[in-house]
Amino acid sequence: MREVSNPSEILLSQRDEELSGIAISAMLEGARPMLIETQALVSSAAYGTPQRSATGFDTKRLNMLLAVLEKRCGFRLSTQDVFLNIAGGIRVEDPAIDLAVLIAIISSQQDLPISSKNCFAAEVGLSGEIRAVNRIEQRIAEADKLGFEAIYISKYNLKGIDQSKYNLEIKAVSKIEEVFGLIFG
Amino acid sequence: MREVSNPSEILLSQRDEELSGIAISAMLEGARPMLIETQALVSSAAYGTPQRSATGFDTKRLNMLLAVLEKRCGFRLSTQDVFLNIAGGIRVEDPAIDLAVLIAIISSQQDLPISSKNCFAAEVGLSGEIRAVNRIEQRIAEADKLGFEAIYISKYNLKGIDQSKYNLEIKAVSKIEEVFGLIFG
Amino acid sequence: MREVSNPSEILLSQRDEELSGIAISAMLEGARPMLIETQALVSSAAYGTPQRSATGFDTKRLNMLLAVLEKRCGFRLSTQDVFLNIAGGIRVEDPAIDLAVLIAIISSQQDLPISSKNCFAAEVGLSGEIRAVNRIEQRIAEADKLGFEAIYISKYNLKGIDQSKYNLEIKAVSKIEEVFGLIFG
Amino acid sequence: MREVSNPSEILLSQRDEELSGIAISAMLEGARPMLIETQALVSSAAYGTPQRSATGFDTKRLNMLLAVLEKRCGFRLSTQDVFLNIAGGIRVEDPAIDLAVLIAIISSQQDLPISSKNCFAAEVGLSGEIRAVNRIEQRIAEADKLGFEAIYISKYNLKGIDQSKYNLEIKAVSKIEEVFGLIFG
Amino acid sequence: MREVSNPSEILLSQRDEELSGIAISAMLEGARPMLIETQALVSSAAYGTPQRSATGFDTKRLNMLLAVLEKRCGFRLSTQDVFLNIAGGIRVEDPAIDLAVLIAIISSQQDLPISSKNCFAAEVGLSGEIRAVNRIEQRIAEADKLGFEAIYISKYNLKGIDQSKYNLEIKAVSKIEEVFGLIFG
Amino acid sequence: MREVSNPSEILLSQRDEELSGIAISAMLEGARPMLIETQALVSSAAYGTPQRSATGFDTKRLNMLLAVLEKRCGFRLSTQDVFLNIAGGIRVEDPAIDLAVLIAIISSQQDLPISSKNCFAAEVGLSGEIRAVNRIEQRIAEADKLGFEAIYISKYNLKGIDQSKYNLEIKAVSKIEEVFGLIFG
Repeated sequence: MREVSNPSEILLSQRDEELSGIAISAMLEGARPMLIETQALVSSAAYGTPQRSATGFDTKRLNMLLAVLEKRCGFRLSTQDVFLNIAGGIRVEDPAIDLAVLIAIISSQQDLPISSKNCFAAEVGLSGEIRAVNRIEQRIAEADKLGFEAIYISKYNLKGIDQSKYNLEIKAVSKIEEVFGLIFG
Repeated sequence: MREVSNPSEILLSQRDEELSGIAISAMLEGARPMLIETQALVSSAAYGTPQRSATGFDTKRLNMLLAVLEKRCGFRLSTQDVFLNIAGGIRVEDPAIDLAVLIAIISSQQDLPISSKNCFAAEVGLSGEIRAVNRIEQRIAEADKLGFEAIYISKYNLKGIDQSKYNLEIKAVSKIEEVFGLIFG
Repeated sequence: MREVSNPSEILLSQRDEELSGIAISAMLEGARPMLIETQALVSSAAYGTPQRSATGFDTKRLNMLLAVLEKRCGFRLSTQDVFLNIAGGIRVEDPAIDLAVLIAIISSQQDLPISSKNCFAAEVGLSGEIRAVNRIEQRIAEADKLGFEAIYISKYNLKGIDQSKYNLEIKAVSKIEEVFGLIFG
Repeated sequence: MREVSNPSEILLSQRDEELSGIAISAMLEGARPMLIETQALVSSAAYGTPQRSATGFDTKRLNMLLAVLEKRCGFRLSTQDVFLNIAGGIRVEDPAIDLAVLIAIISSQQDLPISSKNCFAAEVGLSGEIRAVNRIEQRIAEADKLGFEAIYISKYNLKGIDQSKYNLEIKAVSKIEEVFGLIFG
Repeated sequence: MREVSNPSEILLSQRDEELSGIAISAMLEGARPMLIETQALVSSAAYGTPQRSATGFDTKRLNMLLAVLEKRCGFRLSTQDVFLNIAGGIRVEDPAIDLAVLIAIISSQQDLPISSKNCFAAEVGLSGEIRAVNRIEQRIAEADKLGFEAIYISKYNLKGIDQSKYNLEIKAVSKIEEVFGLIFG
Repeated sequence: MREVSNPSEILLSQRDEELSGIAISAMLEGARPMLIETQALVSSAAYGTPQRSATGFDTKRLNMLLAVLEKRCGFRLSTQDVFLNIAGGIRVEDPAIDLAVLIAIISSQQDLPISSKNCFAAEVGLSGEIRAVNRIEQRIAEADKLGFEAIYISKYNLKGIDQSKYNLEIKAVSKIEEVFGLIFG
């Protein structure tokens, strides 16, 4: 990851209107919390085998997350091109980005924008379960400081977190379907 | 492998109900024992050649283990998509994870959950034999400390182990079929 | 990137006439601003699957940018060979080159040259949005010093920039279509 | 190769009965002699192109050795899946393992077990010749110490070796066919 | 690049007669100028898809240069095998070799030898333009010292060069077609 | 390359009879001259596309040398499997091995053994020319010391060599055809 002097400043000033296919993730780069933008572009594959391509994210992990969407949640993505991009030329290996990746993909496929006041921090497992991630309080604090209104985390990450310390709402979920219900439902 | 402050804490709090396709392995990271979750997703391949993909685990080793299941144990996996994932974004090279990988795959294919009180620590050979692994006592002790009720190991790892020191039950096996009989039978 | 004693000197002396398929980008190499030339060659694919090849630039990112042009802007590039080259044997990882890459591709496809007095410095997202980049003032100052007449940047990069300090015109845009309108329209 | 505290101990306790597809090689890891187990799994290819996969061993070298078996010794392996595995998660680059690889492959294909009292230490050339390897005495001494009854080496490695120093029998061979005659004949 | 004690000595003594498919490039290895031989072999592709292979040179860059020859200069190379080799086992990343690569390819395709008294030092862009390279005077001086009679460079590299200092003729060109006219015309 | 205590000793004791497909090369490993054995296995491709595989040698260079044999010397190898191996598990990057590679390939294809008293040290170019290599006297001296009777080198390597110092015969050649005439003719 290349050094970015004030990444949140750059991140948070990029949109006047809500665009579909974008979800923000509360990530860690080393010990430093950072809010980053995950972008997806899903559309019909015009020719032959669908394209699956990710910049800044592991393509094998993208394929795994698409398999979860297909086989656990019933989405039909197999005839569609899927592009994934992490804004800012950043390369992410923190599994806490998983949930934002899934949300961005469905947002693009359904053409439904996500409020830019929401952010996400959770790993997703092969059963479609929403998993806890490390240093969740640092992630929440950073999102709170930057003015986000809600953060979606795993309910297994709730222990010891004092909601009253934050202005933003902490939404605790345990399955992908729950998140989709809250976001798109 | 990225540093995780209290990995067992995170690991052991992720499930309210039992999910199929999950098996826990008693692994070593350097000298440190660590319990990690292996996840498999097996389902009919909808289109053309089946997908075989692993995140956090060597894909060639996954193919080898699938060949053992097919050719030694008679499972039919060749027309099915198989995804394998190590929870927590961890990358594993310790062959002691082999048995948990096989168990997770069959658990998903048969849609039979494994009790989350069981864990596994054994290498698997091309003949379907369950092989001893190094530092087995450290692995057993860690699983015991974390409250697991049973650990499956190779019978060739039994020498010098004092079962009476542990609360958890040590199940010694020598062939895949034995494990399957004990777990799914 | 190999060291180049006076890169701007070499860059700025290469053309007597305007050629299509070329766009200049205001890039950073470490802390040093540098103007570099992005070249594209787009033409009908004579045989079978079209070629997509980039030297000095990530091929996956090229494919992502082509997907944006196709799916967001309605260009038909899927039956055309696309070659991309960064002049000088330079390898670029700065996302600020994105906009120049897109402009070079369309310039070649439409066979419309870009004035060599224009330069570009902006990331492009999967929604076709023009994104802010870091150290924009250094980039603008270098382009100004070298005698460029206009630089295209993201409107989200405008904050705190004093246009009156520069001779070159700062053109702030937020979508690809805007840039195309200004350049080719 | 990962460190293994007492590798021979682990190696030599893994089998109650003889299994086909296994051959033991007297290898060097740096200056340290080590007996390791080579495993092969050969079976009819159920679907399309046969699989050729090796874990812990170079796949190109596996293909080369299969070509020798086919073109020099007349075996028909081209319609069969061939998996090769080095037990213990070890990665081997010592060419002295070649002979054990070939023996394991034929043992699996013919379903004929090799006595676990035999071991092997020789390179194999493209003409099917059995070639000398370096530090042969260290290899023989280690196999002797661990109780093996026979070691197969190249006859060009015999010079200066005093058979009377060892309990194990040294079998010197110069062509693959000779070894096969002695082992399977 | 491996060290070569007296590379020019070896280079300049290799030919009694002129062979087609060879062009000499004035290259830099670090700060050291060096004359090297670029070799091409172009012939009809006997079977299926034509082979494109380069040793010592980036295959993607070879494909890019072939696209320039096809799409800018009208050569038909798409049904021909093209092999490129840098003599001496050297690996080149200096873009100044581009022009010699193109000349070697056309020399082989047309079976017209290039005088071994000519050498080349210029980058080639996607528009077919001949581009300036760094440290051109060092390159010219080395070629002069070794007895070459002509060096082809970009006309944008002429500034500040005093032709009268050298015995060799400096031929300044700006487009591939010009070079071809001078060499093969 | 792994250290080999007395490589020549091992090399020179491997054969009682002459085998086809083997040629010995006088190589340098750093400053140390070393005689190594190059092995080829050429045979009809039984199934589909011919296999081209090299262990210890660059596969792209193998393909280049095969193209020279086909297109410059008229050999028909395109429907044949070609395997190349460097004995001893050695990996070679010295271009002086080229000539031995070609000789081994033709020896295997024609099933004509090369006298083990011959060795080779020359690069081969795309025109089929035999090229000089560095430190030729060290190579010759080592071959002489080990009792070889002839060494084939490039005639452009003859300068300054005093044949009378050596017992072995120095055969200087300039084209592949010459060597083939002397060896197989």
